[in-house]
Amino acid sequence: MSPGFADLPIDALMREALALAERGFGLTEPNPRVGCVLWSADGRVIGRGHTQQAGGPHAEVMALRDAAAAGEPVAGATAVVTLEPCAHHGRTPPCCDALIAAGLARVVLALEDPFPQVAGQGAARLRAAGLGVLALPPGALADAAHAINIGFFSRVERGRPWVRMKVAASLDGRTALDNGRSQWITGEAARRDGHAWRRRASAVLTGIGTVRDDDPRLDVRLVETARQPLRVVVDSRLELPATARLLPPPGAVLVAAARPDAARVAALQAAGAEVLLLPGRPSPGPGGVPREAKVDLPALLAELARRGVNELHVEAGHLLNGSLLREGLVDELLAYVAPKLLGAGRGLAALGPYERLDEGPALRFVEATPVGEDLRVRARWRDAAWPPAR
Amino acid sequence: MSPGFADLPIDALMREALALAERGFGLTEPNPRVGCVLWSADGRVIGRGHTQQAGGPHAEVMALRDAAAAGEPVAGATAVVTLEPCAHHGRTPPCCDALIAAGLARVVLALEDPFPQVAGQGAARLRAAGLGVLALPPGALADAAHAINIGFFSRVERGRPWVRMKVAASLDGRTALDNGRSQWITGEAARRDGHAWRRRASAVLTGIGTVRDDDPRLDVRLVETARQPLRVVVDSRLELPATARLLPPPGAVLVAAARPDAARVAALQAAGAEVLLLPGRPSPGPGGVPREAKVDLPALLAELARRGVNELHVEAGHLLNGSLLREGLVDELLAYVAPKLLGAGRGLAALGPYERLDEGPALRFVEATPVGEDLRVRARWRDAAWPPAR
Repeated sequence: MSPGFADLPIDALMREALALAERGFGLTEPNPRVGCVLWSADGRVIGRGHTQQAGGPHAEVMALRDAAAAGEPVAGATAVVTLEPCAHHGRTPPCCDALIAAGLARVVLALEDPFPQVAGQGAARLRAAGLGVLALPPGALADAAHAINIGFFSRVERGRPWVRMKVAASLDGRTALDNGRSQWITGEAARRDGHAWRRRASAVLTGIGTVRDDDPRLDVRLVETARQPLRVVVDSRLELPATARLLPPPGAVLVAAARPDAARVAALQAAGAEVLLLPGRPSPGPGGVPREAKVDLPALLAELARRGVNELHVEAGHLLNGSLLREGLVDELLAYVAPKLLGAGRGLAALGPYERLDEGPALRFVEATPVGEDLRVRARWRDAAWPPAR
Repeated sequence: MSPGFADLPIDALMREALALAERGFGLTEPNPRVGCVLWSADGRVIGRGHTQQAGGPHAEVMALRDAAAAGEPVAGATAVVTLEPCAHHGRTPPCCDALIAAGLARVVLALEDPFPQVAGQGAARLRAAGLGVLALPPGALADAAHAINIGFFSRVERGRPWVRMKVAASLDGRTALDNGRSQWITGEAARRDGHAWRRRASAVLTGIGTVRDDDPRLDVRLVETARQPLRVVVDSRLELPATARLLPPPGAVLVAAARPDAARVAALQAAGAEVLLLPGRPSPGPGGVPREAKVDLPALLAELARRGVNELHVEAGHLLNGSLLREGLVDELLAYVAPKLLGAGRGLAALGPYERLDEGPALRFVEATPVGEDLRVRARWRDAAWPPAR
């Protein structure tokens, strides 16, 4: 660690900045959630801020305004930020310039910005202006900063959203009874927690089967939010009824279809939805199963990334879940496991039948936490190529 | 807390006694596992002991011998024990008498003995001899002491073993592929952990279906043990082949059957097994399903308790698991959950199909802990009548 930063309580300040960044859930899309704490030359927190909605001020500017509102001079202060301050003119002037203009002495950042126009340039610009810059080494703080913006990093670095598949299941893996009943397998605390994960997503994706079975709204209701995620329905044959409860308002709805049908498209557009035609690619060989009739799921993810979707929250049935898993498009499983046994019923994903135990998706657990009476279990691909180990 | 014990570091001493008690796993059956620490008048641990195999010395005597071997006088010392010292002549003289004869000043105990011949009498006898006795109030230490001997308490208080059902399943609740393959869904650490739970059981129970599918040995191999649990096979029609790998040695095997068949009984006896005939009770009403052809499972549990089985470890297939669950005979589910998805395959228990989500067994989670790459999840009946809240 640079001796020029030895006086700073970096761990505590960065944790506060991370907590501020989390206030950006449901707010900053498609921008990253960033938090900033200002630490005065005489050793006090004098300003706090987090990035606002797209086009609004970033965390650094909010923190500077906070200090100014409190009458605290910022010259010589240190900014502790969860992500490298931007150096380019986007919808707002560069944050680097604001920090330099304010006379700050030092900047601590948890992670470099992955965005090609910015990566490393913010730190360089600050250093060129005479500020001390400390980028944290790999570790728990950098990991926490990455987790808050995992979708933003995924979109910028991979060109696809971070895909989180949410399921609610009994301890024996049943998501619904044979009669289709699934409300509610998990308890209220788990449902509210699920809405908090919906809120941090740019978009929520489901399939036409789930719309038919449950007619869900898929909006964020059980926790407060400043914006509603885009709702996306995979509906290859354009069967979504114009009366579906998820059709707007609130929020936008995108229907991904594989077959054009002018009348259906017009009806859905009249109901407020946008229709996106993405027929599957032809099968590679003569023995392949025709896929033209199904939505090209990788193309859908690429299009969502192009539209700025960082985290994609999937709440679908076993068929679409199975397709996404088989095509390797799921990054994280978010499973709420209820202390129930149902025996018969629907599984969480249509997979197999396999001949060998190692044929199915191989995951690794990243979390198992009680949420009310249920467990929240998260798992990721065991051998995922992204994110690279830092 | 009695002022006469204010000088004692009770928490640390009882935790050490509990750790000693755990050394009795796989050793003391059918007696409880008990640990004892001796604390000298000048404030040092001078002796440690735990109960040995049935007929051998109990924890208190082992601790007194330990102190004697080290040349430590025990007059005026304090004994910290995880269970009330016994006051009756069983296969060994009463521990109370040994403590009194040794000149101890005080005894701290975590729990009263549930055994009718002893409950409260040990403490009374000690007090009558002038020793100070402190029984810990309800709390974490008493709970930990109870958990170590939950099977002993269950057998004595309910007349049936504590039934722990072990399953190994994928995250979507599959315990085997459709082709029957189940080895191994979970990793080596989970399998070893499973053997540690087998070890602490008096008996391991399975069904004839599992013997046919997997031909398991069901003995304790992956952890060290001083004794092997009794193996119990529910085999209503006496189909167990004399070549089954679980037939002795090591350890004893009990085959529970519903139909007498002299030739089969003789063959199994020749292979070292005992055969127990327990036909199911006739169905109560005219519309009932005949159950005579199935082993009477409650009667089997009662007979196992009569034979001194404290904890019964079930490793069976979905059919027997389903029967035990439907009859309300399972106290705890011990589930190793692997970070895999298998989609199709066998479930952990044949239950349902239900019409409503609240028809199945309603559990509550008591643990979710990583074990190697897997999760160990334990759950108990949500509204269990036993053990009563203390």
